[in-house]
Amino acid sequence: MKIKDIQRQMDIDALIICRNNQFLGQDILPSENKIAELTGFDGSAGKLVITKENAFLFVDGRYEIQSKLQTNAEEVTVIVENQNYNFRNWIKENLKKSKIGYNPWQVSISTFKDWKKLLPDASLIAFPEIIKTPRATAFEHKIEFAGISSEEKITKCITQSSADAIFIGAADNVSWLTNLRSNALPETPIIRAFALLSAEGEIVLFADNLILPTNCSIKKYPLSKLEQIFKTLSGKKINADFKYTPNIIFDICKKYQINIINTPDVCTFEKAQKNPVEIQGIINAHIRDGVALCKFLHWLDKNKKDLTEIDVVKKLYSFRKKQQFFHSVSFATIAGAGSNSAIVHYHPTKDNHSKIINNSVLLLDSGGQYFDGTTDVTRTIAVGTPTSDMKQKFTMVLKAHIALSSQKFPQNTSGIRLDAICRSILWNCGLDYNHGTGHGVGCFLNVHEGPQSMSVSSSSYPLKPNMVLSIEPGYYKENEFGIRIENLVYVAEDENNNGFLKFKPLTLAPIDFRLIDEYLLDNGEKEWINRYHNTVYSIISPLLNKAEQKWLEKACSPL
Amino acid sequence: MKIKDIQRQMDIDALIICRNNQFLGQDILPSENKIAELTGFDGSAGKLVITKENAFLFVDGRYEIQSKLQTNAEEVTVIVENQNYNFRNWIKENLKKSKIGYNPWQVSISTFKDWKKLLPDASLIAFPEIIKTPRATAFEHKIEFAGISSEEKITKCITQSSADAIFIGAADNVSWLTNLRSNALPETPIIRAFALLSAEGEIVLFADNLILPTNCSIKKYPLSKLEQIFKTLSGKKINADFKYTPNIIFDICKKYQINIINTPDVCTFEKAQKNPVEIQGIINAHIRDGVALCKFLHWLDKNKKDLTEIDVVKKLYSFRKKQQFFHSVSFATIAGAGSNSAIVHYHPTKDNHSKIINNSVLLLDSGGQYFDGTTDVTRTIAVGTPTSDMKQKFTMVLKAHIALSSQKFPQNTSGIRLDAICRSILWNCGLDYNHGTGHGVGCFLNVHEGPQSMSVSSSSYPLKPNMVLSIEPGYYKENEFGIRIENLVYVAEDENNNGFLKFKPLTLAPIDFRLIDEYLLDNGEKEWINRYHNTVYSIISPLLNKAEQKWLEKACSPL
Repeated sequence: MKIKDIQRQMDIDALIICRNNQFLGQDILPSENKIAELTGFDGSAGKLVITKENAFLFVDGRYEIQSKLQTNAEEVTVIVENQNYNFRNWIKENLKKSKIGYNPWQVSISTFKDWKKLLPDASLIAFPEIIKTPRATAFEHKIEFAGISSEEKITKCITQSSADAIFIGAADNVSWLTNLRSNALPETPIIRAFALLSAEGEIVLFADNLILPTNCSIKKYPLSKLEQIFKTLSGKKINADFKYTPNIIFDICKKYQINIINTPDVCTFEKAQKNPVEIQGIINAHIRDGVALCKFLHWLDKNKKDLTEIDVVKKLYSFRKKQQFFHSVSFATIAGAGSNSAIVHYHPTKDNHSKIINNSVLLLDSGGQYFDGTTDVTRTIAVGTPTSDMKQKFTMVLKAHIALSSQKFPQNTSGIRLDAICRSILWNCGLDYNHGTGHGVGCFLNVHEGPQSMSVSSSSYPLKPNMVLSIEPGYYKENEFGIRIENLVYVAEDENNNGFLKFKPLTLAPIDFRLIDEYLLDNGEKEWINRYHNTVYSIISPLLNKAEQKWLEKACSPL
Repeated sequence: MKIKDIQRQMDIDALIICRNNQFLGQDILPSENKIAELTGFDGSAGKLVITKENAFLFVDGRYEIQSKLQTNAEEVTVIVENQNYNFRNWIKENLKKSKIGYNPWQVSISTFKDWKKLLPDASLIAFPEIIKTPRATAFEHKIEFAGISSEEKITKCITQSSADAIFIGAADNVSWLTNLRSNALPETPIIRAFALLSAEGEIVLFADNLILPTNCSIKKYPLSKLEQIFKTLSGKKINADFKYTPNIIFDICKKYQINIINTPDVCTFEKAQKNPVEIQGIINAHIRDGVALCKFLHWLDKNKKDLTEIDVVKKLYSFRKKQQFFHSVSFATIAGAGSNSAIVHYHPTKDNHSKIINNSVLLLDSGGQYFDGTTDVTRTIAVGTPTSDMKQKFTMVLKAHIALSSQKFPQNTSGIRLDAICRSILWNCGLDYNHGTGHGVGCFLNVHEGPQSMSVSSSSYPLKPNMVLSIEPGYYKENEFGIRIENLVYVAEDENNNGFLKFKPLTLAPIDFRLIDEYLLDNGEKEWINRYHNTVYSIISPLLNKAEQKWLEKACSPL
């Protein structure tokens, strides 16, 4: 299908096309990307509005250049969004009284309600289309990793609801609840399915092309049968989290007089606070990931010459792949050499990558999906002799990292407050970074998981024990170099101070001492680094070969 | 009028009585306090619900003991509010389908809308009663202090509105806009009036018993004439900030088909960013206030024996009163000796005060209203030999104070983030304080002024240049001692870092070195104190007598 074909057949004023499929909030496969199919633009976010004469592609600042390169300017007008000029303002201004088509599988109830508010005089017309998902095989996430059985999780969910049924739209919540995972996506082991949970604890899944394990007794229907099943709930009350529920569910509920009530999904909160088995698994996964990373860093130090960013990505993968319980990477590795390190969302590709640059830094942000845990770690590595500016900025970012890593805080402290504590030391030097300080991380699930986060835009959701988060302050000097130091941590009670929480480190990999300017560190900060490196060395060293051990000993030697 | 008289005449189920009068968000005179008249309880916050058989007084935790002592338990049931059990929940639960009376002059449109939501099946019946305000004399706030003429302010307001008129309900905004002040309240020099501003810039005031200056040409009507004037706006559009507009205005607008639109009051934002004349005036007022405070501290050091808290309050007042442009104190002085210092909202009274306690601390939180600025300062003062615990906690609070005072931050940083930065160092020791870190301060207006603030409950309103705020971390050990160190500061651009802001200190008074444990301070903190004390000494010393100068020299000598 081409934009022109759509325009030829259009008997409405505009058609809105989203990038995502029906599993809202999850990433998609390239083959599922309608916007790429129609425009050529394959960035990770965007919206397309097709009118009879024109097509408007809305992208954020990251994709300004890429979107213009990938699209045909005669056919598609690219609009780079900012606070004042964006998709929402644009449709409010330009589609006031229009007939607008949309796919109610692609749009959450919350988003649809927002559009309705923006466009009180327009008519929004649903063109339902289930986006095809290729065949995927589900497998059991074993109890030795999951810690809690699906039955127990279901019981917890239904006891917190007074409705007749709960609809769960978020695919990672369905995966968590059912203890099922799959190979549907290359980096995120979720099953892509919706769940309907009755008050009696019976669960049914809706998914296409998903093969359940043979011993799995859960009933499964194709998405096309969803309406038929919902029909049986006529007159009943159901809960659904409107942010993760496609608007077609709302339409179906209206049709069959089902009372659908917007309720934050209990799974979201239960899933965020990892259980003891998960915490232990995550700790173990980080040891294995640390071994792979240390082996890689040792190798890199010996082989820096004539490497490309892609060589680095491949080699790191080869070390991770050998680790027990390894399933896949947890996201496309960011390996930024020289000035590429200053591009926050840079990914080297086959067609577009650079050589490792001497006398500069290599920024390496990577992670693994292990059956017992998900990892995400960034190290900025000296190549040759970095400049004193690089060392100074690296040390400032390190100070910010240490400040937050060692911060204690009362129960119910929200992430937006901790984000500011991390930036404080950088702000005092007039420095800052244009991304969040920390995101939640799932357990063999999404590497970005809510509700926990530490950022300026994060809601006021309070941090609670056993949540896993990243701490990743940075600094980026455009066209020159970028710094980021990222560890994962989990929240624990502070045994010394009643009512207070603290972070415990998970990531185990040395922080490059060649980039540290010792004179900028105070004693407390030096102690933190020495203690951290001592932990890394004592845990990882026994799992390395002699040469690697020797390398690690030096990398972890006290300041 | 007694509760029983009301109950005898009641033909409704419940009557809600608020503590405030029609000037919402402002404090009241004791004679205006309906709750005190009916129940005896004279605390600074509370709500009363009278039913046919009972009366329920809602107070917050601060007033648990006082409210029970002051009321008759047979007549009034005291309910101490907490997050889960409070006025809102109580009425939702107990007045579901009731006929409820309320005074639409006492309740903002926002609050009324909230009640309507809580009580969809109740009927809320307005019993309008204008609460009598005693005679007050207004005076001009001269241009040499105000910096901008009323005409200029009015022009600014109306150019930001597309309505036919603006109703201004907040009395401090009306005072700011008209450059008028009065003696209506003992500590806050506002005029208590509403203003109606036409799109052409004509302004009329509504107020009872307010004498305007003879040369003032502003039209004024009694509150009883408000409806008559509003009638002339029939069919027109007016802006009003629903948080500060009594609900009777909404009823009147409905009656006369006036389209009233909830709009944040422009005055609030214009008033918050002080103009250059105000900033200079505020700086000057702080020099005079510093002189008074230093003279007092010198006197206190010589006369500590056999003093009571009341003696302290009176003596401090006598020093302030002698200063140029002094008008009144800016709030009732908190002078807490010994364990009284641990009670955050403590005020000594004639009937209830203590002697100064030896080998402890005196917490002194006070301020003045000067024609050119408002001050608010807390010093915690050593009496005899304080314990090492007191010194340790004082030093930790000082570290928190220094951290925020010297913090730089990007434009648009919200107060909730800066609040966390102040607490960070205390949190790391398991310490915290149960109040905000900073509040906005008016210029010869309210000592607590929004929208700027630094606290956990503060909205995300960003700090902007020339806002005045307090920085006042503390620590309170129940029944033992309390610490608070409070300076006022104003927000300024950081000349060294483009796009960054910083705080500039206003308050000039020594921080008691006898409570500082030097070993807990790092070099940067010592430098901050020495620099601050050097500023205090060099500005204040020339304005003191010889003996006071000698005392200040010692109080400000470098660590």
